[in-house]
Amino acid sequence: MTDVLAKLYDVIQKRRGDDPRSSYVASLHERGINKILEKIGEEATETIIAAKDGDKAEVIKETADLWFHSLVMLSHLDINQQEVMAELESRFGTSGLTEKANRN
Amino acid sequence: MTDVLAKLYDVIQKRRGDDPRSSYVASLHERGINKILEKIGEEATETIIAAKDGDKAEVIKETADLWFHSLVMLSHLDINQQEVMAELESRFGTSGLTEKANRN
Amino acid sequence: MTDVLAKLYDVIQKRRGDDPRSSYVASLHERGINKILEKIGEEATETIIAAKDGDKAEVIKETADLWFHSLVMLSHLDINQQEVMAELESRFGTSGLTEKANRN
Amino acid sequence: MTDVLAKLYDVIQKRRGDDPRSSYVASLHERGINKILEKIGEEATETIIAAKDGDKAEVIKETADLWFHSLVMLSHLDINQQEVMAELESRFGTSGLTEKANRN
Repeated sequence: MTDVLAKLYDVIQKRRGDDPRSSYVASLHERGINKILEKIGEEATETIIAAKDGDKAEVIKETADLWFHSLVMLSHLDINQQEVMAELESRFGTSGLTEKANRN
Repeated sequence: MTDVLAKLYDVIQKRRGDDPRSSYVASLHERGINKILEKIGEEATETIIAAKDGDKAEVIKETADLWFHSLVMLSHLDINQQEVMAELESRFGTSGLTEKANRN
Repeated sequence: MTDVLAKLYDVIQKRRGDDPRSSYVASLHERGINKILEKIGEEATETIIAAKDGDKAEVIKETADLWFHSLVMLSHLDINQQEVMAELESRFGTSGLTEKANRN
Repeated sequence: MTDVLAKLYDVIQKRRGDDPRSSYVASLHERGINKILEKIGEEATETIIAAKDGDKAEVIKETADLWFHSLVMLSHLDINQQEVMAELESRFGTSGLTEKANRN
């Protein structure tokens, strides 16, 4: 499978300037950062509830929503998703997962 | 860049059975789903606050934390991250972003 | 000022059995615990965003929403709000705020 | 029962200037608004998880934590808790619960 988040981020970037009436992404950008962040809070909550219900199909759907709106936020703040991926990769040294280094 | 989340998910899967005293991933699994979900709520909140501060470095770090703990949750529930990617991809038809189809 | 939350809780209790089409409280109860908890996640997020904006009028409104939906949740779970108040009061000994006792 | 939140708010106000090493409230104020808002996100998440577990004792404890940190936030922003109570009361006219008026 190719890198879906990278592809998705590109699509989101392209949609920024579209008509907010026909593009959900464009409408989020138009409504601004507060609306986008509200969606992140909402989708995180729905992911948690789905996980507590043990409803796998719902967990998949809500996690997808959470990541999707995270990408919209990054795009809105002019942060490339690759920077998040680089951050994640930097936590994994050649010697494997150096998890504790990032923990307080 | 290769698919970082796929690689990260594999590492998380391998770490599940490690000693919780030396592996953060293993310690999260041992502490259970409630602890993992608390982390998702926490990292979502910290992402929101960093975005409101306009602190890009912090947004990158917190989004990485949010996605990382999402992957740990998926692993804990025996859901492959590819299922989330497939869900995200299914929302993007050959005709481009069919966003509204997934919106209520 | 009299005890507003106690009065509000009583009103919410009385509204539980009303017609969901005309009562917001009844509609929340009918939609169930997940919907009520989604509202708590939403209102907490909106409170955080309003506070970051330094918008006092909005903070007041969102905090009111957060507490209101907390009361609906308590009512849905058949927990009297007095039990939360008793919990809060128990943390305040005769010698003043014994805060640290409740902290990990 | 007297108005516990009003009493609690007064105690919190008095504690603002105390030594952060001995007062949890003072330490929250010293660490600033971001730390206080992180606690609100955390306690909201823990309330949601406790409710999904149907664990009434835990719901009471976490709701108390959520309201307590809401009061600390109000105090930090120099908003009296009475303003939130007045907002809640204004939604309840003499003709009973006029809920829908505040809903979008």
